Amino acid sequence: MEKEQNLDLFFKDLFDLIRIQSVSSDSSRKGDMVRCAEKWAEILLRAGVDKAELMPTAGNPIVYAEKIVDSNAKTVLIYGHYDVMPAEPLELWKTEPFEPVISDGRIWARGADDDKGQSFIQLKAFEEIVRSGELKHNVKFILEGEEEIGSPSLEDFCMTHRDLLKADIILVSDTSMLDKELPSLTIGLRGLAYWEIEVTGPNRDLHSGHFGGAVANPVNELCKLIAGITDENGRITVPGFYDDVEELSKEERDMIAQIPFDIEKYKNNIGIKEVHGEKGYSTIERNSCRPSFDVCGIWGGYTGEGSKTVLPSKAYAKVSCRLVPHQKHEVISELFCKYIESVAPSYISVKVTPMHGGEGYVFPISHPAYNAARAGFAKAFGREPLAVRRGGSIPIISTFEKVLGVKTILMGFGLESNAIHSPNENMQIDMVFKGIEAVKEFHREFDRI
Amino acid sequence: MEKEQNLDLFFKDLFDLIRIQSVSSDSSRKGDMVRCAEKWAEILLRAGVDKAELMPTAGNPIVYAEKIVDSNAKTVLIYGHYDVMPAEPLELWKTEPFEPVISDGRIWARGADDDKGQSFIQLKAFEEIVRSGELKHNVKFILEGEEEIGSPSLEDFCMTHRDLLKADIILVSDTSMLDKELPSLTIGLRGLAYWEIEVTGPNRDLHSGHFGGAVANPVNELCKLIAGITDENGRITVPGFYDDVEELSKEERDMIAQIPFDIEKYKNNIGIKEVHGEKGYSTIERNSCRPSFDVCGIWGGYTGEGSKTVLPSKAYAKVSCRLVPHQKHEVISELFCKYIESVAPSYISVKVTPMHGGEGYVFPISHPAYNAARAGFAKAFGREPLAVRRGGSIPIISTFEKVLGVKTILMGFGLESNAIHSPNENMQIDMVFKGIEAVKEFHREFDRI
Repeated sequence: MEKEQNLDLFFKDLFDLIRIQSVSSDSSRKGDMVRCAEKWAEILLRAGVDKAELMPTAGNPIVYAEKIVDSNAKTVLIYGHYDVMPAEPLELWKTEPFEPVISDGRIWARGADDDKGQSFIQLKAFEEIVRSGELKHNVKFILEGEEEIGSPSLEDFCMTHRDLLKADIILVSDTSMLDKELPSLTIGLRGLAYWEIEVTGPNRDLHSGHFGGAVANPVNELCKLIAGITDENGRITVPGFYDDVEELSKEERDMIAQIPFDIEKYKNNIGIKEVHGEKGYSTIERNSCRPSFDVCGIWGGYTGEGSKTVLPSKAYAKVSCRLVPHQKHEVISELFCKYIESVAPSYISVKVTPMHGGEGYVFPISHPAYNAARAGFAKAFGREPLAVRRGGSIPIISTFEKVLGVKTILMGFGLESNAIHSPNENMQIDMVFKGIEAVKEFHREFDRI
Repeated sequence: MEKEQNLDLFFKDLFDLIRIQSVSSDSSRKGDMVRCAEKWAEILLRAGVDKAELMPTAGNPIVYAEKIVDSNAKTVLIYGHYDVMPAEPLELWKTEPFEPVISDGRIWARGADDDKGQSFIQLKAFEEIVRSGELKHNVKFILEGEEEIGSPSLEDFCMTHRDLLKADIILVSDTSMLDKELPSLTIGLRGLAYWEIEVTGPNRDLHSGHFGGAVANPVNELCKLIAGITDENGRITVPGFYDDVEELSKEERDMIAQIPFDIEKYKNNIGIKEVHGEKGYSTIERNSCRPSFDVCGIWGGYTGEGSKTVLPSKAYAKVSCRLVPHQKHEVISELFCKYIESVAPSYISVKVTPMHGGEGYVFPISHPAYNAARAGFAKAFGREPLAVRRGGSIPIISTFEKVLGVKTILMGFGLESNAIHSPNENMQIDMVFKGIEAVKEFHREFDRI
């Protein structure tokens, strides 16, 4: 196959994008954000859009592009994001994170999947269907540069450009399939709320011999606060936290139980001896349909080599909850802050800063676009896809629905082994080609509905 | 006063020592350790010892020096350490940590007090009393380079050189007074046990959306382990931990209650709203006569700018207990490791590594050398010193007693505000001069007992 013989050429645009270190959480990367957006505009123009431009926001620019075939035709709005997660911890990467390497049938790099690689699938499917003359509807693209930091500018952008973004369906490739042999359509996502907690004890690091035992240690106290957020059944103790959580119906649980799932393979893949989570729920239920609480980072005191006896002045943690549909992230954020305030002891100071958040989402499978996507997967993978809810969050999807009134369909081609957000992120080349086939078929089917 | 007019000259040797970054916990500083030891040998020779040499150990060399006045006379062995704590966090220093600055009547630098500054007091007192022809007894010096990492080589050194180190009393300046107007003799110290805890969850950092809620988070679990080590009364929950702790007698508690102590000044000085510790004990009891548990450092997951949603693979903490006399650090260390093992859940891996430890110590005030020290403080400060127990640890003191069979007297001239082990460590110049007076008087009185 020609493509496989010319992989480097085929993936040149993707590799150019990967090489730009568009880490949105790193404020020193502002220049790279703009460079990455400009590169996307250039690539989109070559792929066949009528126009492509950088549109300013309060944060990083959004790339907008469009191909208007017929102003009376239906419109597909394709969303992707050009920003990536930080690559840290760098020492765990086997290759340079921002220098893509092809090996073992995969592309290895930060963003190879999330979301440069998956947005590249949308780009190529569009390019090919334009070239073949099959495109009968309008296509618009928006690529944002702040997805990994919670899309703080996107809602404003959508409100300001409601007319420009008019569409019948939004198409996103930013999710994963259950397994490479198990095509699946993500019909539900979890929401997210994220906070930073800062605990302050004494006004400076103290000698733990002179003060230890008589002055509260902010790290000890932070640990107590965090330990208290979940109970012995793995449930979150914040009062009111579960108020809007809809219990899974028997039908849903039966459907979930039918998803092929090999618990031993799951455990081996991530190197754990036992799974652990909320009592009374299966692993798939826990990681897709139930809320969770994770410390994403913690630090305080002396963390260098050897030992230092110190009673630190400060301790910090970055913590997040995954939320399920109907939980409002602002409500949860407020409940969380109030809870921490109420349990923080008076002999330390605690500050909770909400960082970002987003709602969960459920897609109605009765929607006609669902059929187009289903047909796409069936053609590319040779079997009907499963409809599943996933544990990740794409908060902007509920923003789209709220502001633009448009539903979003998630055709994701990632795999769990792609290690997104982790060292050694990668993307199966095979999945890129199948993804392109699936999205092309979506475009064809979309004209028939 | 001539000395004050020529401070820079008077302190030149001390400043030279401070400028050598002898951080014993930093393995890249091996060269500086030797340079600092060599500088001490050079300074001691100039001060009047007969010989000074570097003696090898398994770790950093020990500086040995002696002035033998009369082989039948009594001998004072002076101990100090030339290593210092790391200076981190560097951003909190107002001056360069390894570049001494004189201002506000203080010397500001890492080691200005602990223990370069205090050892300098011993050096100068020795030099002056030699010069004045008053020295009637033998003086030996040992300066080690591993005190801040638990003196791993000192016990072996003492065993190998028992004869060389023969002495009637050991004199150490490495403690502090209650207040600059309150001369005090430290007659008790706490012991120490120090561990590093490593918790491992999945074999790599995971996406907290895809796995959160279904896979145990090592940071959450580490926090639970740490939170469980103390109970709601501030007592340590490790079974057997208090078995060897001697309860304070009514007499001791009465004596402690008579130590002048201004709780408001104490809180203001370190910027806390309330003190906090073991129920049923006063602040002085808590920080000097009762054991404590402190997290000295904690880290895991994403600790950079902004937010990263990640379920980390690993979490770490450096933790320590201050122990009281009669608690054996090896026994406590074993109890602690067993306890953590017993409570660590099966869905994570926990490794506890003992780092170092030492016993507590109590000095009998009936010992004749106590009177010499008492007289020294009385002369220099114009009032009788209080005899107090302190919360810090100098584990080698019980080693000296065990291996050399010699008691140690602690004439310390630090102040709480000296911020040892913290940013902006400093030493009051006035206290240096008074300290020299006190130690000179000790030498004079020592010949009379």
